[in-house]
Amino acid sequence: MDERSYSEIRKDPVMGRWVIINKDPGYIPDLNEKIVRPEKKDNCPFCAGNETMTPEEIISISLNDHDPWSIRIVPNKYPALNGNQNLSKEGIGIFDKMTGYGFHEVVIESPQHKNSLSDLSKEHVFNIFRIIKKRILELKDQKDIKYILVFKNEGSSAGASIEHSHLQLIGTPIVPKRVQEELDGSKFYYDYKKRCIFCDILKEEHGSKGERIIYENENMISISPYAARFPFETWILPKSHASHFENSSDEILMDLSEVLLFYLKALDKNLINPHYNMILHNSPVKEGTEKHYHWHIEIIPKIKKIAGFEWGTGFYINPISPEDCTNVLKRRSE
Amino acid sequence: MDERSYSEIRKDPVMGRWVIINKDPGYIPDLNEKIVRPEKKDNCPFCAGNETMTPEEIISISLNDHDPWSIRIVPNKYPALNGNQNLSKEGIGIFDKMTGYGFHEVVIESPQHKNSLSDLSKEHVFNIFRIIKKRILELKDQKDIKYILVFKNEGSSAGASIEHSHLQLIGTPIVPKRVQEELDGSKFYYDYKKRCIFCDILKEEHGSKGERIIYENENMISISPYAARFPFETWILPKSHASHFENSSDEILMDLSEVLLFYLKALDKNLINPHYNMILHNSPVKEGTEKHYHWHIEIIPKIKKIAGFEWGTGFYINPISPEDCTNVLKRRSE
Repeated sequence: MDERSYSEIRKDPVMGRWVIINKDPGYIPDLNEKIVRPEKKDNCPFCAGNETMTPEEIISISLNDHDPWSIRIVPNKYPALNGNQNLSKEGIGIFDKMTGYGFHEVVIESPQHKNSLSDLSKEHVFNIFRIIKKRILELKDQKDIKYILVFKNEGSSAGASIEHSHLQLIGTPIVPKRVQEELDGSKFYYDYKKRCIFCDILKEEHGSKGERIIYENENMISISPYAARFPFETWILPKSHASHFENSSDEILMDLSEVLLFYLKALDKNLINPHYNMILHNSPVKEGTEKHYHWHIEIIPKIKKIAGFEWGTGFYINPISPEDCTNVLKRRSE
Repeated sequence: MDERSYSEIRKDPVMGRWVIINKDPGYIPDLNEKIVRPEKKDNCPFCAGNETMTPEEIISISLNDHDPWSIRIVPNKYPALNGNQNLSKEGIGIFDKMTGYGFHEVVIESPQHKNSLSDLSKEHVFNIFRIIKKRILELKDQKDIKYILVFKNEGSSAGASIEHSHLQLIGTPIVPKRVQEELDGSKFYYDYKKRCIFCDILKEEHGSKGERIIYENENMISISPYAARFPFETWILPKSHASHFENSSDEILMDLSEVLLFYLKALDKNLINPHYNMILHNSPVKEGTEKHYHWHIEIIPKIKKIAGFEWGTGFYINPISPEDCTNVLKRRSE
């Protein structure tokens, strides 16, 4: 058996999903077009000076004397869900549907078109997380909203349709399926062990050789998950148990910004500005503090196409082990 | 509220996943590069004359007098899983893993490089399904194999790395998560109603205006599923209840070929040879005939990038309703 044919199958302890780690020396990353943003774009609705091109601003903050705003939240002009209708549910024979009630907002990360999230200062990124926290706290009691999803699509391969760097907030009247599975998986573990599975994972990662720890500071840590589905997939978690992102202190959000920037800069350096998705995995908004669920951020660089195999099964093939990915990211972060 | 802001949320009755159907008049399909295959490619391991470039042939058939083979099954040269090792399971602290035991084979659909699956005759496609059925029957009793996945990646956007048209078979020592969810979802329905949910869906589709039925013949039917995740997503099912593809009669496989070719030609015509994934959803191999599960084929054209939203939640946004997709496919199939 040559090296090429070595593979192992690992189980994600939270989701119960199995991943083939097939250390493939012949794997060539499917590198996306490098993201190069011009200084300014005339028709960009998110650029300074083009504020009238977006729906009316919801909230903004300025971090210096020369910019009228540094971070700005506006409604999505073409929302996937919207609040102009009531939530109503209907059965049609065997089928179920409801109105597309919810909200869909955009967090414009900076007024300058050229900036990627990884170009911003730690303080600026901290303020982005702070304004998102504020917005979640404002929206979480809204009628019929069960979940607030916070995510970022960086680059066209990640599904971004507007180049200017931004995050999105979507409030939904249901708890999405994948989120519910994660909640159920961690609840199952908690009911059996009376411990948070994410806390146990962090303990395990610290107790082992640290071979999947990318970076940590006082409050936050980034790891390559044991059963990573994708090369360079990364989770960023608070080191102490916490179920709701929106309850985070300033210290935690500042440490989060540092850990995130370390990872994004390492990614930029090693994979030449890859397209990626970043997703906040948070508790449903109406739930009180939970002992079994632990909020975190998952980042998935888009350097491997998802094939039929993955779609059909939820059973992924990852050609680079998380230990190798960790080594690369640790070694070349600046 | 303008037309643009209309959306509804639909539930997939089998999986319980919710999909936003956001009829978006501004949506432009993310068309892939048109697949144009040359007559022959010197270095293609799947072309006639290059048989020595693949591992030793497992099985082949010839459908005419001039070709030594018309369809050929060979082991995958770089298998994701392989049988050169025993299945062994191990716990490492909180984590679980097993050896990458299994098999991974390739079904070369025709000796000519230029052919897409949709270029082949109904009889040829029938024989592809027949040889796959034969191979599943040969492999299903193999030790420690729980599931045999049959799928096709057409085009680079669908994850294909070899251009010559082919399908793949992967035998796994576990039942993959998404498959298990489908089994669980249909079992839940069966336990409650004592009826197969897929049979009930077909009854519902026939009883309504037929607005999601693309094509049907005596034994098989293609539909746009009610809660389609993607534009032009299609399911092809046997009209009578059947849990295992490999128990299909020749009549069923011939009708399957006709329904599949109708769909693929309509897709080629309307979307200019899109890249797509095709996946056989089948029962686990060791299970006897099941009353709750109904085998079928799912096809997903790759004309919409999956964004962070979808990854984070399993909650999809589909910008074209399945009813509109059905209309397009029915109208322009030739």
